[in-house]
Amino acid sequence: MAPVTAAGEEMYALVERLYPLCRSITGDGVRATLEIVGEYVPLRVHEVPTGTQVLDWTVPQEWNIRDAYVADASGRRVVDFAASSLHVLGYSVPVAATLPLAELREHLYTLPEHPSWVPYRTSYYKPEWGFCLAQETLDALPEGEYEVRVDSTLADGHLTYAEHVVPGQVPDEVLVSAHVCHPSLANDNLAGIAVAVFLARALAEQQPYYTYRFLFAPGTIGAITWLARNAERVGRVRHGLVLACAGDPGRLTYKRSRRGDAEIDQVLRHVLTDSERPHEIREFTPYGYDERQFCSPGFDLGVGSLSRTPYAGYPEYHTSADDLDLVSPEAMADTLAVCREAFAVLDRNRRYVNLSPYGEPQLGRRGLYDSLGGRSDAKEAQLAMLWVLSLSDGEHSLLDVAERSGLPFDAVAAAADALHGAGLVKA
Amino acid sequence: MAPVTAAGEEMYALVERLYPLCRSITGDGVRATLEIVGEYVPLRVHEVPTGTQVLDWTVPQEWNIRDAYVADASGRRVVDFAASSLHVLGYSVPVAATLPLAELREHLYTLPEHPSWVPYRTSYYKPEWGFCLAQETLDALPEGEYEVRVDSTLADGHLTYAEHVVPGQVPDEVLVSAHVCHPSLANDNLAGIAVAVFLARALAEQQPYYTYRFLFAPGTIGAITWLARNAERVGRVRHGLVLACAGDPGRLTYKRSRRGDAEIDQVLRHVLTDSERPHEIREFTPYGYDERQFCSPGFDLGVGSLSRTPYAGYPEYHTSADDLDLVSPEAMADTLAVCREAFAVLDRNRRYVNLSPYGEPQLGRRGLYDSLGGRSDAKEAQLAMLWVLSLSDGEHSLLDVAERSGLPFDAVAAAADALHGAGLVKA
Amino acid sequence: MAPVTAAGEEMYALVERLYPLCRSITGDGVRATLEIVGEYVPLRVHEVPTGTQVLDWTVPQEWNIRDAYVADASGRRVVDFAASSLHVLGYSVPVAATLPLAELREHLYTLPEHPSWVPYRTSYYKPEWGFCLAQETLDALPEGEYEVRVDSTLADGHLTYAEHVVPGQVPDEVLVSAHVCHPSLANDNLAGIAVAVFLARALAEQQPYYTYRFLFAPGTIGAITWLARNAERVGRVRHGLVLACAGDPGRLTYKRSRRGDAEIDQVLRHVLTDSERPHEIREFTPYGYDERQFCSPGFDLGVGSLSRTPYAGYPEYHTSADDLDLVSPEAMADTLAVCREAFAVLDRNRRYVNLSPYGEPQLGRRGLYDSLGGRSDAKEAQLAMLWVLSLSDGEHSLLDVAERSGLPFDAVAAAADALHGAGLVKA
Repeated sequence: MAPVTAAGEEMYALVERLYPLCRSITGDGVRATLEIVGEYVPLRVHEVPTGTQVLDWTVPQEWNIRDAYVADASGRRVVDFAASSLHVLGYSVPVAATLPLAELREHLYTLPEHPSWVPYRTSYYKPEWGFCLAQETLDALPEGEYEVRVDSTLADGHLTYAEHVVPGQVPDEVLVSAHVCHPSLANDNLAGIAVAVFLARALAEQQPYYTYRFLFAPGTIGAITWLARNAERVGRVRHGLVLACAGDPGRLTYKRSRRGDAEIDQVLRHVLTDSERPHEIREFTPYGYDERQFCSPGFDLGVGSLSRTPYAGYPEYHTSADDLDLVSPEAMADTLAVCREAFAVLDRNRRYVNLSPYGEPQLGRRGLYDSLGGRSDAKEAQLAMLWVLSLSDGEHSLLDVAERSGLPFDAVAAAADALHGAGLVKA
Repeated sequence: MAPVTAAGEEMYALVERLYPLCRSITGDGVRATLEIVGEYVPLRVHEVPTGTQVLDWTVPQEWNIRDAYVADASGRRVVDFAASSLHVLGYSVPVAATLPLAELREHLYTLPEHPSWVPYRTSYYKPEWGFCLAQETLDALPEGEYEVRVDSTLADGHLTYAEHVVPGQVPDEVLVSAHVCHPSLANDNLAGIAVAVFLARALAEQQPYYTYRFLFAPGTIGAITWLARNAERVGRVRHGLVLACAGDPGRLTYKRSRRGDAEIDQVLRHVLTDSERPHEIREFTPYGYDERQFCSPGFDLGVGSLSRTPYAGYPEYHTSADDLDLVSPEAMADTLAVCREAFAVLDRNRRYVNLSPYGEPQLGRRGLYDSLGGRSDAKEAQLAMLWVLSLSDGEHSLLDVAERSGLPFDAVAAAADALHGAGLVKA
Repeated sequence: MAPVTAAGEEMYALVERLYPLCRSITGDGVRATLEIVGEYVPLRVHEVPTGTQVLDWTVPQEWNIRDAYVADASGRRVVDFAASSLHVLGYSVPVAATLPLAELREHLYTLPEHPSWVPYRTSYYKPEWGFCLAQETLDALPEGEYEVRVDSTLADGHLTYAEHVVPGQVPDEVLVSAHVCHPSLANDNLAGIAVAVFLARALAEQQPYYTYRFLFAPGTIGAITWLARNAERVGRVRHGLVLACAGDPGRLTYKRSRRGDAEIDQVLRHVLTDSERPHEIREFTPYGYDERQFCSPGFDLGVGSLSRTPYAGYPEYHTSADDLDLVSPEAMADTLAVCREAFAVLDRNRRYVNLSPYGEPQLGRRGLYDSLGGRSDAKEAQLAMLWVLSLSDGEHSLLDVAERSGLPFDAVAAAADALHGAGLVKA
């Protein structure tokens, strides 16, 4: 794993700030989150009204919550939203009632196999109310009457998402997406948001080739809303990466796009293999995060997903144990480093055409080749030029050349630059 | 192996009835065989006259035999057709003569490496007479004169074959073929005939999607005759299976079609692998049974071949030891079970097109998805729907979806039905 | 390795004769070499004037050398061209001077890691003078003044190369190429020249199908010159092989063409694997010998390269230790044997079309099949015919048939001949 970096510490500090907020697929928690993110990178925030048709879906009512609790006969709050945003079932309808424990149980969610953890549960599209709590809390509740109160509103409003764009030399876009709908869960997905933010800042310093679009949106409905409202822009998305669960101590996991052989898939495999980090490459599945939407067969974008331990792969997943202890500056710094390495390759990965394809061009005449012949230790730079010339038939990218030749991508890209400078290849 | 079933016992009883008959590529033995088969499934019997041109071949004269023997000087029959139909060289021309053992030897066929077994030999296209006998019988014959008699006729007549059709919902056909030309050999191919018969009966109870055509015909010339007379129908054969050597104790062997990746090849591989039966998958060879004809390059049908121990793969092959002891109800029941499993998959294996391919359709609204979110244990039925939606691009069949996802074919097919019912996919 | 053969001894004798000559990319050393080769096979010698544009290159001035030495203060020649043609830097400009050792050092080339060996070095395209010598010779030189003399000429003249053609039944060509520009280096490439010569003689005795063109030309500039002057002929080159380093004791190494799956690649892999010789198959790299030019992306010919220990793969490479002891009659005979086996396959490797593709043709009627049926030991010749019929769809070559069936290529080719004779297939 990469050493602790200033960026690692800054990402962790951002996660700490975002952690207490109660996010959901709509509402003020999302807005507060985006406001903080906007302190790091300029955001364009979009508000889409309830009822808007987005592909096969409809933007739901906006949910906001002020307070929620279960109190015992003595008035003591035995489950309290103020202690953790996880305690309330996401999108709970308002309720104010007193009822016996037996009836209350139908609205309580626990994790019997982890009795001290609070689960994360939602009911976005079916009107319900409920509380999530530790099994051991539930076990300690005596029979009797309990007061329950959810002080929430479900009303016409808006769905909120935001975009940040790092302009490039061409309008072709790379889409980087992180979901912002999960409440107090650190790895899923505050770590993903933090890595996206610092990746954007790093790219902005580089005058990249591609235009990089960062999307901070609620999962599923947010991605669907963005796709519905950007029918034209979608055609410009050449590559993409969904960032999720980016800060836990597990090894890196890259999940391929649905295409399986998109350029982003090749780049991530190359960079992860080349870096000698422990990692796993997974085939696409139509389950997980917003790659589900970007890779749906009608769009079928070249969008992969980078995580550390992936979706549902660690016990703390979607529980109160996905907290600030689970994520670390080191892990986030490592995820960020891989993203930067990958985009450094992707951004320079071009297909060239050899303009002197009949025989080798005389490189020596152009100062690109040693004048002393007979030596058996050809230099990497010269080999790289010969490889670029050999494979620059419009079919092979520079990364293909690097992988076929076994030469470092940087050497191949430098050779392509030299040949381009000599007028021997064109992009 | 599957437990003994009623069908296993019934198949064995059918084999027992057919065993004594003297079959060949033409003649009354074939007719008697088809008459018995016709008691189990209705048959349409075809009689094709001698001299009919069929592709590159000509229907030969019809051969019938009443008696044949070799008798010693005392008149004792030392080789007797009445004891086994194998004793006469198939298609022997008539002969009545007395000749010394030295001359007779040129017409005798034995298996020196299995001295107690009688080989099966034929001479369809070269006029010959001859006897097959055990090496130890031959060794015991004293020198001297022997009377030989083959009371056969070779005369213009007919080639006989039969078809049984299980009607389906579409005119596209699945061809199941078993050769009926071998005399008293139990595994090759009375077991194949028996499995075909009981497979037809099982399919008839199911209102299948495809139309299933069962062909009972003599090997090579029978398949060629059917192909020659069904030029139009051949175009409707989408899939096919040749059944042979279906009753011995060996493990199942599937031989791929010449195409190698026909749908039937995928189905059999899937079902055999999935069933965890010991089995072998072989590449196509242009040698074996009537897949030679169906897979000839002009037709190149998607027809594979299922056997237990395949063609020429067991010592008893084409000898008197391929008898009623070599085959068992259990083995035939097991072969039948695999055929039924395979056709259950094949018959439901369709390519669908996702009618809502942009993003995921909202399954929850249609009652197809859990309303409670956040859980990490997605249900198989929901996963299967997401997979079908993801891969229903007209390219992937349901079996492709099952293999890609690792989900059971039944779950995938059920998901496709559910999505079809909701109007989300079309076939 | 193959036993010593008369050809092995003759090839070694040819190498011995060629060894002392001082070859370079132009000049009388090349002419003398071709004159000797011309005693074995008739050559057409081409002289291309200095200044001729050839693809991206220009034919350089012609270099000739009569004498060169470094002499010490006493007049003793401490480095002497007369002792070995390697002692002078190839293409040295003339020089006559006296200078101190310190200054002389800048023009001296040694191999510190092999102190007794003399390196081979050139400076074709940058005007330089220099000497190559053993490190231990250099170490023994006292400080002081030295007389240096290179009695060479660099002047307008010609580049010389030669061709030998073995006429075939069709104008489609197989190109066999060996570079002739290296001075006193036995394995690189006198052994390659010798194998090419004796391969040509062997082919001439066989009335081959293809026209075989043998090219003896200086490396790089010679191949480029030939390509530039034979734009039309290049289109006829169906297959090719570059021969280099053909006589050392190492195992055989075949380097694939850039295409990677050209017919020559398949043939060499098949023959090397089939022969059970230790060998290595390498992927194409754009570095090595003249396959660099023939496989440049504009031409992309199906040209591979056969060596024993390949380019830069042995310590003696491009040093005085690549001498007559490094190469052997046995090794050259073995390389020649593989070439002959490979071209025997290549020359007969055709794609046939089955003219009777619907069902099997009745081979028995044509005397091509046993009349006795029922036996389980089908003969190789009959199996080969069935395989040729099955795969003769215009897509599969006879070598494909051999590899798919596991039958020997000779059996498959004989079957194709028999079927062709019977009018059942056409080429």
